[in-house]
Amino acid sequence: METQEETRPWEQMVALLDSDASVDAADVRDYIETLAPGETARALSRLAEDERLRLFSRLGPEYSADLMVLLHDAQTADIIEEMPATDAAAILQEMPSDDRVDILGEMEDEDADAILAALEPDDATSVREMLAYDPETAGGMMIREFLAYPEHWKISEVLDDLRANRERYSDFDVQYAYIVTEGGALSGVLRMRDLVLARPDEAVRSIMLPEPMSIPVTSGLQELWEFFHDHRFFGVPVVDDTGKMLGIVRRTAVEEATADRASDDFLKMSGVSGGEEFRNMPLRERSFRRLSWLSINIVLNLIAASVIALYTETLDAVIALAVFLPIISDMSGCSGNQAVAVSIRELTLGLVRPFEFVRVFMKEASIGLINGTVLGFLLGTLAFLWKGNPWLGAVVGGALLLNTIVAVVLGGLIPLVLKRFGYDAALASGPILTTVTDMCGFFLCLSLATAALSKIAM
Amino acid sequence: METQEETRPWEQMVALLDSDASVDAADVRDYIETLAPGETARALSRLAEDERLRLFSRLGPEYSADLMVLLHDAQTADIIEEMPATDAAAILQEMPSDDRVDILGEMEDEDADAILAALEPDDATSVREMLAYDPETAGGMMIREFLAYPEHWKISEVLDDLRANRERYSDFDVQYAYIVTEGGALSGVLRMRDLVLARPDEAVRSIMLPEPMSIPVTSGLQELWEFFHDHRFFGVPVVDDTGKMLGIVRRTAVEEATADRASDDFLKMSGVSGGEEFRNMPLRERSFRRLSWLSINIVLNLIAASVIALYTETLDAVIALAVFLPIISDMSGCSGNQAVAVSIRELTLGLVRPFEFVRVFMKEASIGLINGTVLGFLLGTLAFLWKGNPWLGAVVGGALLLNTIVAVVLGGLIPLVLKRFGYDAALASGPILTTVTDMCGFFLCLSLATAALSKIAM
Repeated sequence: METQEETRPWEQMVALLDSDASVDAADVRDYIETLAPGETARALSRLAEDERLRLFSRLGPEYSADLMVLLHDAQTADIIEEMPATDAAAILQEMPSDDRVDILGEMEDEDADAILAALEPDDATSVREMLAYDPETAGGMMIREFLAYPEHWKISEVLDDLRANRERYSDFDVQYAYIVTEGGALSGVLRMRDLVLARPDEAVRSIMLPEPMSIPVTSGLQELWEFFHDHRFFGVPVVDDTGKMLGIVRRTAVEEATADRASDDFLKMSGVSGGEEFRNMPLRERSFRRLSWLSINIVLNLIAASVIALYTETLDAVIALAVFLPIISDMSGCSGNQAVAVSIRELTLGLVRPFEFVRVFMKEASIGLINGTVLGFLLGTLAFLWKGNPWLGAVVGGALLLNTIVAVVLGGLIPLVLKRFGYDAALASGPILTTVTDMCGFFLCLSLATAALSKIAM
Repeated sequence: METQEETRPWEQMVALLDSDASVDAADVRDYIETLAPGETARALSRLAEDERLRLFSRLGPEYSADLMVLLHDAQTADIIEEMPATDAAAILQEMPSDDRVDILGEMEDEDADAILAALEPDDATSVREMLAYDPETAGGMMIREFLAYPEHWKISEVLDDLRANRERYSDFDVQYAYIVTEGGALSGVLRMRDLVLARPDEAVRSIMLPEPMSIPVTSGLQELWEFFHDHRFFGVPVVDDTGKMLGIVRRTAVEEATADRASDDFLKMSGVSGGEEFRNMPLRERSFRRLSWLSINIVLNLIAASVIALYTETLDAVIALAVFLPIISDMSGCSGNQAVAVSIRELTLGLVRPFEFVRVFMKEASIGLINGTVLGFLLGTLAFLWKGNPWLGAVVGGALLLNTIVAVVLGGLIPLVLKRFGYDAALASGPILTTVTDMCGFFLCLSLATAALSKIAM
């Protein structure tokens, strides 16, 4: 089936690099420009280490920096770590300050230190300061490239500065300029569109928007996400506790961090520990990350299945129960997971608070009763028809009915409890739920069967 | 535990509304301003229908429109449907054109028609045109409020227009103005910051950025997401197939749609059909949405468990197997789901293509072999220690080893196959995987046990 792909972009890249020295950076760039950005990212991740080093050294730091933005930070960090520190520093120098810090933050400390030593001293200091902030706070995510003008300036002075530094500012995300007091405290925002319409002799103070919104430097990702969810701004100024402006967090940085976290959570929920796996990682690492969750899971499974081991006599008498145990376990798990998903989403959207146990209990108990009755009746009827024994139907159906109620109520509540005590609800709810509902389901089915043994043993 | 919440905002709102008529809209607004946006959203969704109608009629259409932006589109649609059509129209009139269309698109056709009839004729025509586009395309997501100037204008003419329409444009997201030919075709983009620095007698053509990027009106959400992923723009012009500019898709609209879809997918993957459930929906609807998936799942479970029913003689002879069947089923499901998650993420990030079966097979088969060996050895040893029978250990461990390989390989490949044939991989991979691995696991364990029956029956 692989033949569907006529040319493999990474092989094309290598072919270009391998051809004679007259093929220069421009030719390779021209080829890359023909690829969709996703195609480029895939090609970069498929190149062998030495091929990738040759590619980036041919392309030069500026273009390399642009290409690396297409990759996941963890991938970029892996690539940069392979390089000599001076080459790595040259590429990082071309990136916006927030991307630079994100990538250095993903590296081993000693690799990061070697690169920092090769950066320009000013940049290195600035990066070190930013690395001191938690990467998922405003401090760790802000850029330091922004325009700030003193309150007492006139429009004409601002325009002169914009003209004089046109070149340097062209890399900035200039939609706004910020107005600061003499102490550096943020006092207003100047929109470019208002600057267009202003008279040159006006004071900036008279056209700025006063009391601008800002975010404390310690704000976490959740707060930033909520801020941009509520406000359609493209960036927000970051201030320290004295009100001094330190930088800007861009909406795109918050989006990327949130998407990364969601994608990490998705892998974590599926049992890939650490939330990172790319198929070009070494086999040993991939296997280990998956095994670390599987080995916890096998213990949970053994605990749940040990309930069955207590009832081997009943099972021996009614071997048909062995068919129904996995069904009851799986169906209850599904019903419970639906409630988990609804709770996690309502927590994320802020529609339920972690202490609202009573409300969630009431809402879920009623659904558990309805769905449990329907499913229990269905499975009970099938058990009855199969073996012609109404008591077997009652045991199996009754166990599924009761266990569905337990699973749905627990599924609704577990995420609230975990969140309330500061745990990661998305990560831990599933395993806790299925272990408890498995145990409870096995116990219900087998103890009901034991009680009715004289009626169902054949 | 509910006492932790000292005042419930929705009860406060009702109290304000119920107090005498001297409490006017401003008082209610002042109270709402004290709430965090998430708190407001939660309060709105907890109000009874008649309370909500009273609240919005007291607040007036403009403020109501601002509040509704805090809610999920489906919730806003539910609220708007309750209102008299003229009130609903007045509120929608205050929203940006893309939000307006999204909300009408969530409604029943007849409710939407009644509101359209009450809108101003121009707006109604524009909404009808936009409703004709698929809501998850550029056409369905664009806003029609944008600035466009003819190519031959001078800077001074643009500035005059901006001054004259300052009021009306203040609702626009003005970061850019667009330059169009006489036929309306997009020919350039004018940045506000360049306008600031230009001489009034220059032609707009001389300072515009030529050949701007644009998106065809039929582009889907995936293409829009990729566009904004690759480019740090805040909006992109939408053109028809003649190059005529129709509107702008804003980055925020694409983000919201992507987040909505991700959150819908999350619920869908957890078996809530249609991907929508809020706990303030009617019980019957919530129960039905969950049951529709559970009833499919019970059929899949019965198919898988029917394999066990074929081997009741073997089970009868070795009742201990009943303890291991649910463990083998669950562990294989977990191993397979890890591979599913990695494949889905690599598909989303474009790091693997749907036709790369061989690559994924090789990468997963090796992990399946390693992890299957570890887990099989573990479970086999436990089975041996429990019953003192090495053959039982070999049967149980061997079944888990083989089934882990099957599960991991299938888990890696199923999302690729589904994607290749145009199905929703996130939705269907899990159920298909677990049904197949359950059947295969039961079959492997019980057929190995049957073959070794003379050695393990006690």
